[in-house]
Amino acid sequence: MQVGLIGLGIMGAPMARNLAKAGFQLTVATRTPGKAESFAAEITTTPKVRAARSPADVASASDVIITMVTDSPDVEAVARGDEGIFAGAKPGSVVIDMSTISPQVTRDLASDAAARRLSWLDAPVSGGQKGAIEGSLTIMVGGDRQVLERCRPVLEAMGKRITHFGPPGAGQSAKLCNQIMTALNLLSVCEAMVFGRKAGLDLSTLHQALTGGAANSWALEVLGRKMIDRDFAPAFMVRLQQKDLKLVLDDARASSTPLPGAALVHQLLAAVEAEGRGDDGTQSLVRVIERLAGLNP
Amino acid sequence: MQVGLIGLGIMGAPMARNLAKAGFQLTVATRTPGKAESFAAEITTTPKVRAARSPADVASASDVIITMVTDSPDVEAVARGDEGIFAGAKPGSVVIDMSTISPQVTRDLASDAAARRLSWLDAPVSGGQKGAIEGSLTIMVGGDRQVLERCRPVLEAMGKRITHFGPPGAGQSAKLCNQIMTALNLLSVCEAMVFGRKAGLDLSTLHQALTGGAANSWALEVLGRKMIDRDFAPAFMVRLQQKDLKLVLDDARASSTPLPGAALVHQLLAAVEAEGRGDDGTQSLVRVIERLAGLNP
Repeated sequence: MQVGLIGLGIMGAPMARNLAKAGFQLTVATRTPGKAESFAAEITTTPKVRAARSPADVASASDVIITMVTDSPDVEAVARGDEGIFAGAKPGSVVIDMSTISPQVTRDLASDAAARRLSWLDAPVSGGQKGAIEGSLTIMVGGDRQVLERCRPVLEAMGKRITHFGPPGAGQSAKLCNQIMTALNLLSVCEAMVFGRKAGLDLSTLHQALTGGAANSWALEVLGRKMIDRDFAPAFMVRLQQKDLKLVLDDARASSTPLPGAALVHQLLAAVEAEGRGDDGTQSLVRVIERLAGLNP
Repeated sequence: MQVGLIGLGIMGAPMARNLAKAGFQLTVATRTPGKAESFAAEITTTPKVRAARSPADVASASDVIITMVTDSPDVEAVARGDEGIFAGAKPGSVVIDMSTISPQVTRDLASDAAARRLSWLDAPVSGGQKGAIEGSLTIMVGGDRQVLERCRPVLEAMGKRITHFGPPGAGQSAKLCNQIMTALNLLSVCEAMVFGRKAGLDLSTLHQALTGGAANSWALEVLGRKMIDRDFAPAFMVRLQQKDLKLVLDDARASSTPLPGAALVHQLLAAVEAEGRGDDGTQSLVRVIERLAGLNP
């Protein structure tokens, strides 16, 4: 099976490496000139990875075309542009968009794809760069179930828990549920840490005691530890969490779904961006809550 | 060691049973007339449990006096009342308050106790009725560390993870950190479930997919499952979560610590109470978020 991948960022590059390692004949492209060529040159697996000039070029060489870019407009440009996937893809090909984008834009793209006798799967992931490198991503899929089954070996090269959620857009909706929870669980840890610090508690002792009980979360275990260690390096960047929360709130707005908690976190994370720290990890939200409470950074 | 326990509610009664089972000579009292007597009569361990008429009566018979009542005024009444602990306790005795109450009230009580040559430990718990029955409570302790070490065998009859946090009130502060997190993690699950339901996702599939990743929490695992099953029976009652959030927000107010997330959950849970459902489990918050989103209950 010929596989194409468009987007060689911090997620796309390790995903492409795992596809090559799994033995797929892989063609790649990305926006930055020269980047696809140097990526292809450094991969030593057989068959060799091929660099293409454009998404259309990737598509014409592939049965399955994966996109891993940032946001809805990026996927739309990659799919519908003059040199886009739709311009080059052979009928019967499958596009798997693994970016996190709008469920509604996904439905529109899937419908455009169908009109061109292409299949579209939305398959956003969670697990971050670590999951992408280890090939252990959680993959949430929307679209035709039989198409998913045909593409499963491709997805299995990149992820472990692959779940079909329903028609086009359902994978994106599931991913947004994930992002609502990561956002609120993050605020949960920040407020508890600041309350604890104000009360004079030893935060490592607190972390150890509370991870064992009903307050526990992945956010407490992983991000809480980073807050205590004052490690603000990104596991997941604030600006990407904000992009995802905007998707959540736009989608919720369209369906008249009030999400007061998710909206609050979106507002508070804007204070991190206002400081020019949008590339920091989401755990840097604790600095905002500390500042509100009059604590030194 | 002679042990006394005051308060035979859903937490206190199983805790007293575990103390009796561990072989402590136990004296109990509670507000409801006759309840202590019937409790004592049903325990078949040796030595027999003795029912006392008042907290003073419990205190005069005990080296360690445990209180497990609802809120700050209850502990104050039990300690300072005419027939209270302070009226009956022998110098050198230790009071261990395992209720969840105000850190400031705790500091005041500890200081009163010291003036009477009594020791005071605050030792609130998490783990709920299940943890109380199984003797697996998490216990967060404030007060003198040496006094805690002396009382450890008593606490070990009731709990597993016993952590010393600092001076009087520190155990209560740690417990309130726990409650901040359980509150926000709860809202996190509610908003994701409602967003997912609006998007037409199968919620069991969603639950299964997301418990494996960065969105996971005890709240998702346990309360999310109950929401899906429409099981609103209390593991932890709304009115008790509200009592604890009031303690959190009063304490935060006193130290000028803004907690926008915890405050939001407190406000939203008031809508459950407004429906007369304060005795439901906290997972019933999902019904409020559903209602806001125009979903049928």
